[in-house]
Amino acid sequence: MSSKDLKYNQRGVSASKEDVYTAISKLDKGLFPNAFCKIFPDHFSNDPDWCSIVHADGAGTKSSLAYLYWKETGDTSVWKGIAQDSIVMNTDDLICAGATGPFLFSSIINRNKHLIPADVLTEIISGTAAFMNLMQQHGIAIHYMGGETADLGDVVKTITVDSTISCRLPRAHVIKNEIPAGDVIVGFASSGNATYENEYNSGIGSNGLTAARHDVLHHSYFLKYPETFDYNTSEALIYSGSKRVTDTFEDASLNVGKLLLSPTRTYLPLVHKILEKYASGIHGMIHCSGGGQKKILHYVDKLHIIKNNLFPLPPVFKLIQQESETPWQDMYQVFNMGHRLEVYTSKKNAAALIDLAASFEIEARIIGHCTPAHTKKLTIESEFGTFDY
Amino acid sequence: MSSKDLKYNQRGVSASKEDVYTAISKLDKGLFPNAFCKIFPDHFSNDPDWCSIVHADGAGTKSSLAYLYWKETGDTSVWKGIAQDSIVMNTDDLICAGATGPFLFSSIINRNKHLIPADVLTEIISGTAAFMNLMQQHGIAIHYMGGETADLGDVVKTITVDSTISCRLPRAHVIKNEIPAGDVIVGFASSGNATYENEYNSGIGSNGLTAARHDVLHHSYFLKYPETFDYNTSEALIYSGSKRVTDTFEDASLNVGKLLLSPTRTYLPLVHKILEKYASGIHGMIHCSGGGQKKILHYVDKLHIIKNNLFPLPPVFKLIQQESETPWQDMYQVFNMGHRLEVYTSKKNAAALIDLAASFEIEARIIGHCTPAHTKKLTIESEFGTFDY
Repeated sequence: MSSKDLKYNQRGVSASKEDVYTAISKLDKGLFPNAFCKIFPDHFSNDPDWCSIVHADGAGTKSSLAYLYWKETGDTSVWKGIAQDSIVMNTDDLICAGATGPFLFSSIINRNKHLIPADVLTEIISGTAAFMNLMQQHGIAIHYMGGETADLGDVVKTITVDSTISCRLPRAHVIKNEIPAGDVIVGFASSGNATYENEYNSGIGSNGLTAARHDVLHHSYFLKYPETFDYNTSEALIYSGSKRVTDTFEDASLNVGKLLLSPTRTYLPLVHKILEKYASGIHGMIHCSGGGQKKILHYVDKLHIIKNNLFPLPPVFKLIQQESETPWQDMYQVFNMGHRLEVYTSKKNAAALIDLAASFEIEARIIGHCTPAHTKKLTIESEFGTFDY
Repeated sequence: MSSKDLKYNQRGVSASKEDVYTAISKLDKGLFPNAFCKIFPDHFSNDPDWCSIVHADGAGTKSSLAYLYWKETGDTSVWKGIAQDSIVMNTDDLICAGATGPFLFSSIINRNKHLIPADVLTEIISGTAAFMNLMQQHGIAIHYMGGETADLGDVVKTITVDSTISCRLPRAHVIKNEIPAGDVIVGFASSGNATYENEYNSGIGSNGLTAARHDVLHHSYFLKYPETFDYNTSEALIYSGSKRVTDTFEDASLNVGKLLLSPTRTYLPLVHKILEKYASGIHGMIHCSGGGQKKILHYVDKLHIIKNNLFPLPPVFKLIQQESETPWQDMYQVFNMGHRLEVYTSKKNAAALIDLAASFEIEARIIGHCTPAHTKKLTIESEFGTFDY
């Protein structure tokens, strides 16, 4: 076990979730085992040409950081971002399976009522509605179907914000992740300011936040916010960084707290257009969430993935690495490090995808390519060294 | 505010969830505002004769009690019950809207990995599968569509087990809760041993568990299991009863822990049959979960509901009342007190429903009736006094 794995485990999280995978290993893998989401027959219509997906995910421990930031600054707007995180962690997995809606959305919010007042719930609900309205403007239907808000102070320290999103799609539209040698990899930036975003997005997403929060933030929060961490973790690993949430970092336009809380960018409007025009040329689509740049290894076999033209590292990841001194090789398997979406396609399609991204002011580029191999293998040639996985 | 309300609020829960209702008050009420679940158009088929429901709920703080019982006794089987609680809190709301499947099931489990090992996840998953198999034998399809299991030790003390269940149904099948004066109320027992249950069910369900746990269990658990309650609640309200989980209560066949952990009985097999044969005669169907015997008041207007022939009180509720000294009037608005399902129908239909219940060895009886009134009103004439709400 590497030192990074050890720290991860001591903090009660695991980037690879081995024991969860063991517990669920006997469950049905679905119709397209290599697709990005678990895909089942459409049990409602029983039409053999259609299939359906129900997807569940949430904002994770990012809600604990939103709580700390809100208590520290009084800024309730961060809860809107948590609503977006909770939705996008679902939608951006779903688009990688080829689903573009309509989507049915349902939420599960468990709160500690002593600490989380109705104002916070109102912000989360209005953030949810705002995100859906924005997607509607891009032709994507997400229907609000309700949800549950429970007072679970005996179980939940602050708040969990989870979502379940379901949809159906023609089986012919499923992206099966059948990636041939010779494909290039188009990466789409996780940071920047897309046409449909109000401000700069740091690119952080909703993964690795347990590590990022504790590695970056200052130990004074240990005594001040005992409700934001687990007592079973040793004190040395809690808020072991040097930054207050209101500190600045180099010339980043957001403070440290907002760099870490930046709402997960959605690629929905872009992928909706990509699949409308270029679906047949897409061989694979990967959401680089948990597992970061290594995620692709779950979906290939006998292929050497070479990523040798990655985006310049966005400031938030530089901040996390500086504070944590995490080896760069490990950084790439926890965080997206610059792009959270990658598409596997032929070289001739790549330019059109990059142009389409430009129309949304999302940077895109060919970040690598695939070559034949005897096993699966990933090489990252980064500005910080070359790493094999 | 009554003393009971006060204690509830101090423990960070609320039987009536006023502030949640305020936060969500502007949301769409759906196609049939008086139905038991929120019902929307079928956005997948856009067929105007069909509608759809996505429902979310979970085991609540009952998971915290399962944790304590498991640590105290080593008995992992209680986690199977938590899986059932999490499903049935959804299905038994859905049947009250007239939905009998097929259902699509998805789970969200958030755990503290330091305290909850993979063995517990395995028990929950196998409990889920066992429940689905059992329902399949009764002609009810619940499809397992996947879910998320997240390590959130910084937010979750032990574990939350939530479920989302979706379905579609013909609009003509929706139970609209249009209850006329003159109807009788058929109650279906929450306790006993139905043909599809392996052992005696206490009838507790999954509501009021924060109160029940703390009012009944012994204060020695305060020091022993600090991970099972909220530090923001005053110590005097934490485990303020006299019982250990392995204690007995009068002549109940389960120990105190198992009386409180008894898996929420489902009425699915019974209601499936009722709706197959007698749907047209059903004017209303209420799942007496949160809000207990008062739940019906959300669904009527200008009607006096008189409940004057309730079931004898099951031992678990007697235990809770003895330990808590909660006024009986309050007990009826937190707990189901003997029946968790009630059907509003004409007197001539009642006998057939009671017979059908008998075929499942579920006790049923006419527990009351409805008379015209200027406003909505509920009277409970119980063995412990007459109470107006």
